[in-house]
Amino acid sequence: MGNQYFTVVKDGSVTVPQGFKAGGMHCGLKKTDRNDLGAILCEVPATAAAVYTTNVFQAAPLKVTRESIAQEGKLQAVIVNSGNANACTGQQGEQDAYQMRNEMAAQLGLPEHYVAVASTGVIGELLKMDRVSAGIAKLPERLTGEAGGAEDFSQAILTTDLVKKEICVAVQVNGETVYIAGAAKGSGMIHPNMATMLAFMTTDAVIDQAALQQLLGMTTNVTFNMITVDGDTSTNDMLVAMASGLVGNAPLNPAHPDWEAYAAAFRHVCEHLAQAIARDGEGATKLVEVNVSGAVSDESAQAIAKTVIGSSLVKSAVFGADANWGRIIAAVGRAGEPVNPETVDIRLGDITVLTQSRPVPFDEELALEYLKGNTVTIHVALNHGAGVATAWGCDLTYDYVRINAAYRT
Amino acid sequence: MGNQYFTVVKDGSVTVPQGFKAGGMHCGLKKTDRNDLGAILCEVPATAAAVYTTNVFQAAPLKVTRESIAQEGKLQAVIVNSGNANACTGQQGEQDAYQMRNEMAAQLGLPEHYVAVASTGVIGELLKMDRVSAGIAKLPERLTGEAGGAEDFSQAILTTDLVKKEICVAVQVNGETVYIAGAAKGSGMIHPNMATMLAFMTTDAVIDQAALQQLLGMTTNVTFNMITVDGDTSTNDMLVAMASGLVGNAPLNPAHPDWEAYAAAFRHVCEHLAQAIARDGEGATKLVEVNVSGAVSDESAQAIAKTVIGSSLVKSAVFGADANWGRIIAAVGRAGEPVNPETVDIRLGDITVLTQSRPVPFDEELALEYLKGNTVTIHVALNHGAGVATAWGCDLTYDYVRINAAYRT
Repeated sequence: MGNQYFTVVKDGSVTVPQGFKAGGMHCGLKKTDRNDLGAILCEVPATAAAVYTTNVFQAAPLKVTRESIAQEGKLQAVIVNSGNANACTGQQGEQDAYQMRNEMAAQLGLPEHYVAVASTGVIGELLKMDRVSAGIAKLPERLTGEAGGAEDFSQAILTTDLVKKEICVAVQVNGETVYIAGAAKGSGMIHPNMATMLAFMTTDAVIDQAALQQLLGMTTNVTFNMITVDGDTSTNDMLVAMASGLVGNAPLNPAHPDWEAYAAAFRHVCEHLAQAIARDGEGATKLVEVNVSGAVSDESAQAIAKTVIGSSLVKSAVFGADANWGRIIAAVGRAGEPVNPETVDIRLGDITVLTQSRPVPFDEELALEYLKGNTVTIHVALNHGAGVATAWGCDLTYDYVRINAAYRT
Repeated sequence: MGNQYFTVVKDGSVTVPQGFKAGGMHCGLKKTDRNDLGAILCEVPATAAAVYTTNVFQAAPLKVTRESIAQEGKLQAVIVNSGNANACTGQQGEQDAYQMRNEMAAQLGLPEHYVAVASTGVIGELLKMDRVSAGIAKLPERLTGEAGGAEDFSQAILTTDLVKKEICVAVQVNGETVYIAGAAKGSGMIHPNMATMLAFMTTDAVIDQAALQQLLGMTTNVTFNMITVDGDTSTNDMLVAMASGLVGNAPLNPAHPDWEAYAAAFRHVCEHLAQAIARDGEGATKLVEVNVSGAVSDESAQAIAKTVIGSSLVKSAVFGADANWGRIIAAVGRAGEPVNPETVDIRLGDITVLTQSRPVPFDEELALEYLKGNTVTIHVALNHGAGVATAWGCDLTYDYVRINAAYRT
């Protein structure tokens, strides 16, 4: 796998880039004995950037991480817990998030502002800080550059996710191999909370902080921000990137001759994680990709792609392997974007179902077979401009309802 | 039932207002023998107004109805079919819609532009016009002012709706009793199409055409436009109002002393039909009402109420009778509207679950019992301004997925 720019590292993880260790453990926040506390540590202060949820209600850890990065643009560690989101927890919650940061910094012998904090899990309950503190005291000795450490970390950030999500790619910068890796958690939910997306990226390239922040923002827009499981965004969503710089390349920024290659590799990591989150959406049986072309602008294409991928009717039809283009065109039509109602083509995979906004006969058996696959791509060509976008989501299933209707126990 | 302004007429229907007849029959568009063709007829040219879907893809009948009303602001009949939406049917579809109008006009001896056309059902298939024409030839003799005619009409406009939706209210205008009635169909779907909302209102008041159009638009904004079953809007949504004027009151307009009473009664009819549509949403087990207060404006409150009522997570939680305020506050926070994250109160019915954005202990048993009822009201007080709004929807259930995932047969 890969393209002209990069290769995917088999079984790669966040500890493949030089300078990074990771680990995880069970400290007692989850009811099962699964990991619920994890950390990534860089042996040097890493150039750092982050993006956060746009939800008005932002959980306490986001405030703390924002402050940490704002101070110097550097991080050396991230401490993450699952099982409790530390959201809607007021003054005490903020105090707890600071305490997590400060205790982790003390354990690792770092300045406090070199530590970021992330949480996911139940909303509105205070953290059991005695358990968190006891865990933080033991966590540093478990951090390792071996694969087991990254595995423990990946497990520690999950909630009801079914599979861990990680990837590492290699790309050449100044003739040297540079790695970019990421781990993420997606749409698992434990009541009474909602889907939280957390993602952590590591790289050993030297990169200007402004360039890293810009790259992260741009890439998030076309990857993580283009997935939807059910349209809900969380109080805790956060994506943090750390660059150790241990490769010693000439600092990456848009003027660097290998910038394009690095940016492509970076995007692949984000796209892979975003798709993995969509595929592992609650109750999902398949990944759904919506490609929109011919919109008046990329932004317009994005809005249309997101409306289609977010339609409960389209998602139900995909679950039922129903080649229901009527629902697709109806979603296109209500996106609030400029569309010529006479010029829309729709394909399901390679099967054309609509041309110039008119239904065309197609092989229903073939369509059924295609829609039963584990990845379904819906192509919408508006033939109205040059704007393009891709969005990812999943089908809407009985299991989605089951998982989310369960009374809190 | 009623308030200081109006009373609800028991078993009332669209033929209670003076001058109106209605009827319905099976012409062969539905596979079962259920009614699929219906009409309302007024004995005089009625003052008419209409609102239409905002979807870019508008079905052929909407174009025809728009043209009819544009000519003189009057209608004397509406012809409606179910079983086929006549949408995405191109030139032929337009021709068919005109033919429906013109044949109905000829049968009734009316000018063509006194007839409106509405359709609901499958998208992308041509109407079987031989069946429609044969039906139109027989329909006039079935139109009657008796209750049976209204009943037949109400049945003819349904698709997979479980219950018919109609109401009639009485209100005093210039000391005379004036009636306002309505019939609607909601969120039933037959693949491969999506929810179509059709509503037809009759009244025997004299009302200025501009005042009727304005009242219809304003009222739609706070009633029909505030319901959502799954966020999808149809190519065929249409609401048509006809005023026979046979009461002979001084023409109603905002300067009329009884305008406020008439507008309140008119709104009650729309609100009743809108709630009935929401309650009969596909697979729904209950009506969900979201009241938002304290927003910076009514528009802002509307946006927030619609985001909450449209959240799949909130809808699933209500189905599961889960007092999951975390999902409610998360939906409030992602609505893109000004919210003070520190001042939000949330109540489920009379049960306070959040005060000043902090969870408060509540009786889980009591909440469970309340949420198991057939109507659930969520109150969100933002304490940030004077804007208020109410939205209606339903819960998200296994049956919603079952109904919408079924492969077309």
